Amino acid sequence: MKKITILGSTGSVGTQTLDILSHEPDRYQVEGLAAGNNLQLLIEQANQFKPKSVCLSTKALAEEAAPHLPQGTKVLYGNEGLIEIAADNEADTVVTAIVGSRGLQATLAAIDAGKHIGLANKETLVTAGHIVMQRAFDKGVSILPIDSEHSAIFQCLNGERRSDVNRITLTASGGSFRDRTRAELEGVTVAEALNHPNWSMGAKITIDSATMANKGLEVIEAHWLFGLPYNQIDVLIHPESIIHSYVEFVDHSIIAQLGMPDMRVPIQYALTYPERRPTPTERLQLAKLSTLHFREMDFDRYPCLRFAYESGQAGQSAPTVYNAANETAVARFLASEITFLEIESVIETVLNKHQLVDVPDVEAIAEVDAWARREAASV
Amino acid sequence: MKKITILGSTGSVGTQTLDILSHEPDRYQVEGLAAGNNLQLLIEQANQFKPKSVCLSTKALAEEAAPHLPQGTKVLYGNEGLIEIAADNEADTVVTAIVGSRGLQATLAAIDAGKHIGLANKETLVTAGHIVMQRAFDKGVSILPIDSEHSAIFQCLNGERRSDVNRITLTASGGSFRDRTRAELEGVTVAEALNHPNWSMGAKITIDSATMANKGLEVIEAHWLFGLPYNQIDVLIHPESIIHSYVEFVDHSIIAQLGMPDMRVPIQYALTYPERRPTPTERLQLAKLSTLHFREMDFDRYPCLRFAYESGQAGQSAPTVYNAANETAVARFLASEITFLEIESVIETVLNKHQLVDVPDVEAIAEVDAWARREAASV
Repeated sequence: MKKITILGSTGSVGTQTLDILSHEPDRYQVEGLAAGNNLQLLIEQANQFKPKSVCLSTKALAEEAAPHLPQGTKVLYGNEGLIEIAADNEADTVVTAIVGSRGLQATLAAIDAGKHIGLANKETLVTAGHIVMQRAFDKGVSILPIDSEHSAIFQCLNGERRSDVNRITLTASGGSFRDRTRAELEGVTVAEALNHPNWSMGAKITIDSATMANKGLEVIEAHWLFGLPYNQIDVLIHPESIIHSYVEFVDHSIIAQLGMPDMRVPIQYALTYPERRPTPTERLQLAKLSTLHFREMDFDRYPCLRFAYESGQAGQSAPTVYNAANETAVARFLASEITFLEIESVIETVLNKHQLVDVPDVEAIAEVDAWARREAASV
Repeated sequence: MKKITILGSTGSVGTQTLDILSHEPDRYQVEGLAAGNNLQLLIEQANQFKPKSVCLSTKALAEEAAPHLPQGTKVLYGNEGLIEIAADNEADTVVTAIVGSRGLQATLAAIDAGKHIGLANKETLVTAGHIVMQRAFDKGVSILPIDSEHSAIFQCLNGERRSDVNRITLTASGGSFRDRTRAELEGVTVAEALNHPNWSMGAKITIDSATMANKGLEVIEAHWLFGLPYNQIDVLIHPESIIHSYVEFVDHSIIAQLGMPDMRVPIQYALTYPERRPTPTERLQLAKLSTLHFREMDFDRYPCLRFAYESGQAGQSAPTVYNAANETAVARFLASEITFLEIESVIETVLNKHQLVDVPDVEAIAEVDAWARREAASV
């Protein structure tokens, strides 16, 4: 019986995680479910999975939920509640599926409590990779990637020596606007941007896919997860999202992980690793697809990806700024405050204004993060 | 310093093995080189790699070679010489790159002498898989596949539990006639059949690729190497030969091995496993290729593949007959005695005539093999 807590249970990764658990209820016990404001869905989940505790974003929501929860469910709220539910129970693994860098404190609390991390919250590693990885190493806990690309790389490294890795390649579908030129991106709507061709994901990550900021965040995430310098991390456009990513070894042998685009496979792998279990997913049949396509990444077409490499290579506080500026810019685009192309210029402006802070600690990261959000809000 | 013996050193796999060794001469010592009739090349190889012993097919050739070899080289010949060079030296690994089932005795001798096998001689496993695998298991030696497809599967299984395997898929380029209908195969010449689109290989395997008998032999080889029933072994046409084969696990995650078609990668992997070393090969760049294609295998277009599955599933002495009839038929086609399409009818006729022998031992295999060759020679 594996004991699981999910931070962000009502989001896309959260609901798909619960779907996986529901197919083998005898193998899993849900310790905690943390949601933001989706009261109704959290109540449904709590009644189905009977967690020991739940968490909502505010005291008001927590009080509203309480009467509808199974008897004995502990109800937490706010940032302190999130930290408590991440750390203070019997979970073996905490799935961090909250979007954005606000998942950092709870992730660190879970690591400190000795829990393995199923990491869907890539912003955590982007903003504080040096702290998270060191803390996990010190505590002897695993950071198991849930992003499909990182799960692919992780799977491709099974049984291989890290010193035999030549480089890794993260594939990118190209997102909802992959067949448009930059000129054709003028005036695109939020609804158009949210229409991802392959993957069913949350709003923020879908916009990040369209700007290629998502791939940029993944490049930085991969740097930390796999301990590779940026010049050994490539990105390739692969519109079908069938080859999820691959590793080239020193002998020029490439090991790739493939499958239908379905997040439940990497989610489950993070929960069952090093074993595999049947999934309720569709099998990949290459003959039915008949063709796979690949093309070089275009860093002029996708400046957000270039900013990510530059931020990663600059290191220090630059990735925190990149991430915070991007989060704010995407929120402003989703609120129709800025245009799609202005997401890029907001990030670039804030990065250019930033004075790097050397190897920031958690407090310094919080300060830089807050500064970058203020700047990005007013560009 | 790894000590290597190569059986079949002047053939395609043999010369490519020596090419690999020549790039890291400090890591390898050549113990023995066995050739057939290619006197000149064997003498060159012996002078470059200074093996302790060499072997040629006849006493006459051995005597002719002797004065041109480095002083002190032991010169062996014939089947006994082959068995001695396979077993009676300090080699850690014997690369079995002789074509055809006559590699069996020497392979068994090497196993009995405790040597790991770099297996390029797939006919050995086809004709006597139950004996070879049991003997290797008993002696605790590894059978490391050199065929690109089996090396791919072997690499994809790294760090995975065998019980998590759902099925494997061997890819097939389709061979030199892949774009022809059966009607267009009437009257094709030997030269046309020898023109393989992707791989540089010996004559026998190139004809086997055109008839798909090669993939048939590989299916039976995979059955023995990976302990999988035939209904868990698929074959897929992939004209570019970039995905060399793949494994589907129970979670529907697929791990694939990719690379440019270059036998030196699987050859070296068998020599360096579980490590990897740089190879003098071209890197795969998917963006340059831009497209990969896949289509269902057509068992009516390629009856030799269907015969292989049927022989494998029948078991007992059927695979020995399949292999021996195919070897004889291909030799007759290369000698312009029969047409390309008659390769298939020879195999089918001999298989239909055969009375199965239950779990044959080495002697029974030799008898069945000889019977099938006689029959195939006279159809």
